This record gives sequence, C-alpha cells and structure tokens, in this order.
Amino acid sequence: MGTGADRAGSGGRARRLPEAPGRGERVVSVSDRLAELGLALPPVVTPVAAYVPAVTSGNLVFTAGQLPMVGGVLPAVGKVGAEVNAEEAKQFARICALNALAAAESVIGSLDRVTRVVKVVGFVASAPDFTGQPGVVNGASELLGEVFGDIGAHARSAVGVAVLPLDAPVEVELILEFA
Amino acid sequence: MGTGADRAGSGGRARRLPEAPGRGERVVSVSDRLAELGLALPPVVTPVAAYVPAVTSGNLVFTAGQLPMVGGVLPAVGKVGAEVNAEEAKQFARICALNALAAAESVIGSLDRVTRVVKVVGFVASAPDFTGQPGVVNGASELLGEVFGDIGAHARSAVGVAVLPLDAPVEVELILEFA
Amino acid sequence: MGTGADRAGSGGRARRLPEAPGRGERVVSVSDRLAELGLALPPVVTPVAAYVPAVTSGNLVFTAGQLPMVGGVLPAVGKVGAEVNAEEAKQFARICALNALAAAESVIGSLDRVTRVVKVVGFVASAPDFTGQPGVVNGASELLGEVFGDIGAHARSAVGVAVLPLDAPVEVELILEFA
Repeated sequence: MGTGADRAGSGGRARRLPEAPGRGERVVSVSDRLAELGLALPPVVTPVAAYVPAVTSGNLVFTAGQLPMVGGVLPAVGKVGAEVNAEEAKQFARICALNALAAAESVIGSLDRVTRVVKVVGFVASAPDFTGQPGVVNGASELLGEVFGDIGAHARSAVGVAVLPLDAPVEVELILEFA
Repeated sequence: MGTGADRAGSGGRARRLPEAPGRGERVVSVSDRLAELGLALPPVVTPVAAYVPAVTSGNLVFTAGQLPMVGGVLPAVGKVGAEVNAEEAKQFARICALNALAAAESVIGSLDRVTRVVKVVGFVASAPDFTGQPGVVNGASELLGEVFGDIGAHARSAVGVAVLPLDAPVEVELILEFA
Repeated sequence: MGTGADRAGSGGRARRLPEAPGRGERVVSVSDRLAELGLALPPVVTPVAAYVPAVTSGNLVFTAGQLPMVGGVLPAVGKVGAEVNAEEAKQFARICALNALAAAESVIGSLDRVTRVVKVVGFVASAPDFTGQPGVVNGASELLGEVFGDIGAHARSAVGVAVLPLDAPVEVELILEFA
C-alpha cells in the first residue's frame, strides 16, 4: 500500500512537473501521449438519452457513464462471465475510459488542463458467479495511468450489476480535477 | 452531440440570465415553474435509515438516493421489465427526481439558488433481460430539464441493479451546484 | 424528517465546536473517540487493482470502494439474503466504513481534519428477493455517527447489486469534507 498511499496522499500535487523536465520525466501533451500509445480520442459519444456527456462544477469535471461505444456501436453485448469473457471486458473498459476522456475534453477544451484523475466508478454487467470486476475495470484504470502518469492514480469503485443500458458489458464514469 | 456538448461545455455559465430577461427567456422562479408544470415539491421523504436527505459541501448539494415515495408509500414494487413496465418506471423516476429536489431545497432554502444540475445517477431494479434503463431514467432527466431549462442539463449514469431498498423499482440521486 | 433535515441543513456548520466546549459536548479527538468505541483504524487495505485508496480534490476526500477486509482477508463471501444474513452484513458494512476511514486518514493525515461526512454509497450484493439494503448499510452510517457525532450525518444511497469483487457481501465508499 506504500506507493499507492503516497501517491494518493499528495492530492493534486503528485503531478508531472512541467517546470522540472530535467528530472527525467518527459513533458508531453496528453494528445502526444495518446499518439505514443497508438490511441486517439474518439468523437464524443452522443448520449443515449436526455443528458449531456460531461459537466464542470468548480474545478471538477463529472462525466456521464460511458458505454464502450466504437463508432456509435457496441462491439459486444451481454454479461461478463457469460457472453463476454473477462479479458474482452477489460478491453471494453479501456474503450469506456477513452470515451470518458473525449467527453471531458469536450467541456474543458484540452486534457492538458487535467490536474488529477479523482474518481472512477466501473459498473460491470456480471453473471451472478463472476467476481473479477477489479480486473475488468483495470482496463480503465491502466489506460488512465498510461495517459496521465502519476496524476492518473485515482480512487475507484467497481461493482457487478445485473444489466446495463443496451445490454452493454461495462460502463465507466469519471471525476477529473482540472485547472 | 453538438448541442449537448455545447451546453455542457459552458459549465455553470449556461444558466438563465436574470439580468437579461429581454433575450426572450422568461425569468421565473423554480416554484412558479413547478406550478406551471402542475407540480409541487412534496414533503421531504424521511430517510428510511440512519442518514439525512441531503448535505451541502462548498457549493454542491449531494442528495441521498431517493425512492419514488408518494405520501410515504411506494406506488409499486418489483423489477422493471417484470412486475413494473418501462413507462411506469419512467414516471417513478420522475417522482424520485421531485423528491430529490425537495431534499435539496430542505438544505439550501430555495431551488432558485441552483446554478447547475451537475450529476444524476439512476439505479433501475431490472429484470435480467431489461436493457431500457436510459429511457426509464429519462423520467428524472426530463423533469430536471422542464424545471431548470439549460442549467438542468446534467451528466448521468444509468445502471440496472439486482434489487433496491423496499423492492422499489427506481432510485435516483443528484449532485446540484448552488450559489 | 425534522431532526434529519435540520442537521442536514446546516451543511458543514453542524460540527462539534472546539471553541465552545462549555456547551456540554466533550471535545475529543477522533482517535480517542475510536478508542472509546473499542475500535482502532486498521492498516490501509491494499487496493485489489490499479488504483489508490483515496484521493483529495479541494477540500473533499473521495475514498475507493472498500470491501470488509480484515487483515487482508474477507471474513465471508456471498450474497446477502442467501449465504450471508442481514445482521452479519451490517457488521461487514461497519468494517467497510472503518477501512474507508483508514483510507481517508492515509491522505489527509488525521481524521480530526474532517468537517463533514458528505456522502456514503453502499453496494450490497443481494439475493434477488433481499430488500433490506438500508438496514445493512446502517452498519456504516451508525459507525460514522458514533465516530463523528453531528458532522457524521450524511447523504446516502444504498443499492442491491448482483455481485461484488471477490464475492464480497458489501462495498462502501465515502466522500468526506476536510479542513
């Protein structure tokens, strides 16, 4: 718990330091980092109902729960542990997180303004005997770590729900802090 | 996604402007608006356990999860897609939202202080094959739009859970920003 | 609803007042209060995946969802209303809350800095016909009241989910305000 707690304990301060690039950490923009990872932010997914993709209040961004939409289509439907396996579901959680970042960017203009990933909630549509939700939601958590480094370390809840909208296997929402 | 993203992007700024009523948008109090809609805030629902209806921190109000209580009684119980149909459930989500507004008003004094509906989470007790949670939670989202106009546009998560307290079909919680 | 709403209405102001101990309310540190209750904060539970125990943003602490781990082990697994009964589950919710306080302390240094328990979400892994989630999550709510007094009164959502990580019966997350 040492490293994790230390990172968490620094609140918004455990960020990459643009003023001290000599410390050995490259300073790259989030869009460059995404490109390095072979990723690009997708278009913001149109909400499937009467809400908006993300809202800011003070210096927090709350995203809507994101399904793993790719080009407006769910790549798979069903429960994890039944129609969808855990490894596939982890990839879908990664897509959810990418969609959530696109939603956040649409309201703050640039992800370079993000100072901390505060909270992730991952809902996993689960067969009753599937208890591997943490590994599934790691698909989102690991993406956030790859993109944001230390400031990507977040508090998280992962739960197994009965069923998700459109029979999606995973849904992820984020709270981000920005400056 | 255009309109939605634009509204979301303005954070707390996309509000009705009391200083500029000439722009064609009537300035009405929330209580007047509720009356126009044929609605009135119900009494605050007594929490069913050891908590309080709503809490403020800074300029945010967090409401407790609200069941669709009417006069202290649930109008229906059961799972949506089984004992309760989607259209009925949508009406219950609307009642949940109204109860949540009553809870919020009890801690900030007047809903005219609300500057943005930030976040809605809708939990729908769902039969395993019911995937219409977004349509159900629209009952809450649409009410918030009717009551608050542009500042009612919110981020939202909707999930299908196994079962809710007292076998309620829907539970809704809100985060509101106020001044 | 009277008492509850009144306490809620005072936002962060309904705290114990260190400057006015003559009012009849003893001023004790949280660690002393825990000792009086026969409790001690456990070590921070190592996250079961790629996240951290808690994160601060502004004057809020968001904890990760906490399972009822005791010494790194779940005391019981299964669904409440089936393998686990409601009274046992209430005790597990109490342990979850204690673990969440340990997570919070690890990032703010001392629980004496807490000015309000803002929000509790309790996820109860539930047999399909178990509707007593509020009573279960009271295990967490009552602990927070015992530890923090009036400033422990919080908004809360309790839901019954299909299954939780590691087949845990309960998961609890907190939002705390601190100074």
